[in-house]
Amino acid sequence: MDASSSLPAVAPAVIDELKAALGEGGWTEDAFEIAPHLTEWRGRWTGETPILLTPRTVEEVAAAVRICAAYGVAITPQGGNTGLVGGQIPFGEVLLSTKKLRRVREVTPLDDAMTLEAGVTLLEAQQAAEAAGRRFPLSLAAEGTATIGGNISTNAGGTQVLRYGMMRDLVLGIEAVLPNGEIFHGLKRLRKDNTGYDLKQLFIGGEGTLGVITAATLKLFPQVRSRAVAIVGVDSPAASIELLARAKAETAGAVEAFELMKRLGMTWVLKNIPDTREPLESAPDWYVLIELADGAEGGAEAAMERLLETAFEDGLISDAAVAQSDAQRAEFWRLREEHSAALKPEGGGWKHDVSVPISRIPEFIVEADAAVEAFHPAARVSVFGHIGDGNLHYDVLPSADEDRAAFIALWKEGSAVVHGVVDRYDGSISAEHGLGRLKTEEARDYKSPEQVAIMSAVRQAIDPKRIMNPRVLF
Amino acid sequence: MDASSSLPAVAPAVIDELKAALGEGGWTEDAFEIAPHLTEWRGRWTGETPILLTPRTVEEVAAAVRICAAYGVAITPQGGNTGLVGGQIPFGEVLLSTKKLRRVREVTPLDDAMTLEAGVTLLEAQQAAEAAGRRFPLSLAAEGTATIGGNISTNAGGTQVLRYGMMRDLVLGIEAVLPNGEIFHGLKRLRKDNTGYDLKQLFIGGEGTLGVITAATLKLFPQVRSRAVAIVGVDSPAASIELLARAKAETAGAVEAFELMKRLGMTWVLKNIPDTREPLESAPDWYVLIELADGAEGGAEAAMERLLETAFEDGLISDAAVAQSDAQRAEFWRLREEHSAALKPEGGGWKHDVSVPISRIPEFIVEADAAVEAFHPAARVSVFGHIGDGNLHYDVLPSADEDRAAFIALWKEGSAVVHGVVDRYDGSISAEHGLGRLKTEEARDYKSPEQVAIMSAVRQAIDPKRIMNPRVLF
Repeated sequence: MDASSSLPAVAPAVIDELKAALGEGGWTEDAFEIAPHLTEWRGRWTGETPILLTPRTVEEVAAAVRICAAYGVAITPQGGNTGLVGGQIPFGEVLLSTKKLRRVREVTPLDDAMTLEAGVTLLEAQQAAEAAGRRFPLSLAAEGTATIGGNISTNAGGTQVLRYGMMRDLVLGIEAVLPNGEIFHGLKRLRKDNTGYDLKQLFIGGEGTLGVITAATLKLFPQVRSRAVAIVGVDSPAASIELLARAKAETAGAVEAFELMKRLGMTWVLKNIPDTREPLESAPDWYVLIELADGAEGGAEAAMERLLETAFEDGLISDAAVAQSDAQRAEFWRLREEHSAALKPEGGGWKHDVSVPISRIPEFIVEADAAVEAFHPAARVSVFGHIGDGNLHYDVLPSADEDRAAFIALWKEGSAVVHGVVDRYDGSISAEHGLGRLKTEEARDYKSPEQVAIMSAVRQAIDPKRIMNPRVLF
Repeated sequence: MDASSSLPAVAPAVIDELKAALGEGGWTEDAFEIAPHLTEWRGRWTGETPILLTPRTVEEVAAAVRICAAYGVAITPQGGNTGLVGGQIPFGEVLLSTKKLRRVREVTPLDDAMTLEAGVTLLEAQQAAEAAGRRFPLSLAAEGTATIGGNISTNAGGTQVLRYGMMRDLVLGIEAVLPNGEIFHGLKRLRKDNTGYDLKQLFIGGEGTLGVITAATLKLFPQVRSRAVAIVGVDSPAASIELLARAKAETAGAVEAFELMKRLGMTWVLKNIPDTREPLESAPDWYVLIELADGAEGGAEAAMERLLETAFEDGLISDAAVAQSDAQRAEFWRLREEHSAALKPEGGGWKHDVSVPISRIPEFIVEADAAVEAFHPAARVSVFGHIGDGNLHYDVLPSADEDRAAFIALWKEGSAVVHGVVDRYDGSISAEHGLGRLKTEEARDYKSPEQVAIMSAVRQAIDPKRIMNPRVLF
């Protein structure tokens, strides 16, 4: 289905049947209540739906999906509505929100596992882990609103991927309602289970096209006993990558975060975000935020000291500031986290969430910068991101005196320039945000045809009527 | 297809076409050369095949599969032939060995990644990583023979899963030949790529039913700078689980291995394996082998000391021996690794590779022991395994004076008793070995019907003629 084609109106009889199945509190047609579910925070899309379903149990989800399946009516599942690629916005589909699936079903610290329903927010999941003396490490800016179901459906990333992996790596089991309304029972909290295809992997990152995730069993980790955060200055991305390898070696892999920031983006943070200050006197061309953690008291601080000492000796870093308190740690992190917000006053721009092999990041940046300059010489480029994962947020902004609307009109063409370089470096045009409505069509140009064919065949096998989020993916 | 049904003979014209496509050195019909590929090390199955194909490139694999696909001829892919469930043994299928796909294509330490062809052995993969100053952590008894392709197809486990995960967790990308002979190009060495379903997950643990894996890009890790190994005595499995949680906390998750062994199995090792000696004076009821590692010199030893000190103080462990040299570390590990071999002189038995939630291991062992005793009072039970993964090797042996053949004849019934308890504890009847020929039919009793239905539908979508390893999985 084309992302822009319109759907036939849902017959009133189907709507009535859905209402009867879910009962009071399980649905709404109130435009005021529905409105926040139809737009997303960038304001790029405004959708429409005949009804918002808010089932409270997996059985209610199953009942709703069975009705839609019987009539061939399409469904858009929605979690916390924090997605950046429009996959959660309906355009005539029935909108099914998981926000009322709110139970923490079970936390078993000795298994390092917890089972939560899809509508629990990521922050609440972190808190449930902490209350049990454990840690759930997925962390991202929208964690107060984003839900576990959405995090799984989009295979969320964030700042702790380097050590703990994407959401995919943190899921032990899944419960979902299939496109025919059956319940997929996959909530085992096992670390090892080699009994056929690992089907949960299809739902993870499936963007709601294979069913509605209703609950999940997630991995927990021990809490760390020491933590060290530093911001260092380096001459080049190449130096940052060498430093990354040393940080991994120094900690046997226990690098919690490793974030690269270019000077230009940092100047915008310092200029546009209140209560921020330059962390390094030397004001270097490139900044790296490093976070280390350890199981021993003082272990992270000692590892950071060893790392920075040898890096200074070898001329790999030019300047460094180690946070001396929780407040300073937070201050350093804020400089990284406000990078996106700091772009807005500069005119916004063409945003790219891309990944390339880590070792090729330095040449990628050089080549992408050159390609952008050739296409639009006045553009200003901000680069920052999770360099330890090869994941860059490569954002292209208009010059200060340029017409913003004219610049935004060049978005598709400009993005194709950047994504073309990504493709030449064997990268991905969507590292962590997914394809959604924004990138599904474009992705056909970059995925190999046999992969698109298998995805379509698998989807057809599981959802032959294509009623689950039909505009998204292949 | 039933695991025992026979296939129609492959037409001579097809055999001729395969020979022509692969040329000299790419196939053999020599019974002597083929023989080692038709039996496995337990000697449970002896297969048959009209021809052994040994392609040397992915293109040759594709050519062979295209021919088989055109004629609807079934194929059994085989790696190092170390599988324990018979999934690699042909019964009339064309046998396709990946043993001549031998190239290490690329090792890029700054990406912590390497790309190898399927026929590279696990040991060679470890060595390639080491030569680049890195580590590939998958480790298992058969690593000198087992190949990367087979390790991926069976989602191999082993002794380092607790910290580094199963093979599934170590794969960044896959190249495979699909059942129609097309090449699946999925070798990207990216840490993040959210552009549709993660199809490689289907091939991992797919037991050769969806295609032939020809190459893979694997994750590398930093080498550790310190390592500590201890064997401790505990009163009960419950104490071992509490100790596991403490070991994780003490190292922020850097526990390399945590292996439980019951006294009975240890006495068999000491009795039946030369050059072994009792590691603990107190000869406790249960032993735990613990291995810790760290990025700092002396870090692992210090963590082990902290762990054991508080565990002694709190009465959690009764005795402990910390290895003082590499030789002693190897000696301790040998006590664990020889557990399987030590069973043979005791009469062999019904072996079970099962997993249950870690927290339920103590009650599982009590209940399984009671069920076995009720079924066959004379039986002797050995329990050992990767308790940190919830994975137990639960082996039931005849009494010393019992008729072995009569005991083995009870295998199916006896295994059903054990697996019944596993199922009640929400466990898996195949934690790390896979289903293969041995367990596919039995697994239908324990998988939920919607899961079996989806697996069949996915397989049908990718291999509509069911020519890839047709007797294995659903």
